[in-house]
Amino acid sequence: MTGTRWLDDDEQQAWRGLLAATARIDRLLDEQLQRDSGMPHAYYMVLVALSEQPGRACRMSVLAERTMSSQSRVSHAVARLEERGWVRRDPSSSDRRGKLAVLTEEGRRALREAAPGHVEQVRRVVFDRLTPAQVQQLREITSAITAPADDDTDEGDTPCDGANGRSL
Amino acid sequence: MTGTRWLDDDEQQAWRGLLAATARIDRLLDEQLQRDSGMPHAYYMVLVALSEQPGRACRMSVLAERTMSSQSRVSHAVARLEERGWVRRDPSSSDRRGKLAVLTEEGRRALREAAPGHVEQVRRVVFDRLTPAQVQQLREITSAITAPADDDTDEGDTPCDGANGRSL
Repeated sequence: MTGTRWLDDDEQQAWRGLLAATARIDRLLDEQLQRDSGMPHAYYMVLVALSEQPGRACRMSVLAERTMSSQSRVSHAVARLEERGWVRRDPSSSDRRGKLAVLTEEGRRALREAAPGHVEQVRRVVFDRLTPAQVQQLREITSAITAPADDDTDEGDTPCDGANGRSL
Repeated sequence: MTGTRWLDDDEQQAWRGLLAATARIDRLLDEQLQRDSGMPHAYYMVLVALSEQPGRACRMSVLAERTMSSQSRVSHAVARLEERGWVRRDPSSSDRRGKLAVLTEEGRRALREAAPGHVEQVRRVVFDRLTPAQVQQLREITSAITAPADDDTDEGDTPCDGANGRSL
């Protein structure tokens, strides 16, 4: 184990802090969305990603990237959302084998109704606790962490179809 | 929906950055630990938490808090770790109904062998990308997020049995 670059005390505290903060955020966002809107945060992110696309439609593979999820998990989520009538699956016009996930009117309404409570929880759990300077710092820190490494081959912020938008 | 405190552009970018960074960290830490040590990050955290306790033993309920997990998930993890011989379950001497999870010698060895590769990955994915000032900022930001709210009743950094220690 010689040569291992162990974390020093500051790094150790930052690392444990990051693990604890993300666990807390995950738990409290899920609790609020499940309680008030009957969906986990992962489903909410699928609805948001679709709502931001032109035609509110997106290929499944791209939807997985946009929601930072695996293909199997996003397929599972879309199947559940389809059962609720919030998403439907259409054949893709540009890709014979591909399927498009499409946000339905009911899905838009569910998202619209869930959003205010969700953003209030995001504020309560994260932004009400940070100064404006810390918000900037968090932006720069997370941007450094998500920047592709030189040897990354699997990264990139792939747009669903070149759109941009806002979820909150 | 009047009165909703929507996120401004800076907050929106910080929030999306945080979601993307934590998804990336989760994925890359799991990939490395699965590939090189045959365990997910959640199991690694259980081994670390136990290794830091006096007698390397901890009540299941406290272990769930220490690993920021639910009781059902930590029970599942401990059952899997027991099958590998890395953890065993003993009756608690102080609590008739309770069970203690205990790190075995094999578990200590597995943790010792996994740690150098894991810390190298933590450096690669997080700390090699941050300046020392950003490490301090991250510490303060995550500390603000994890501080109990005035109306929190379920929080607190409960020690397994009053010990402290280091995982990396």
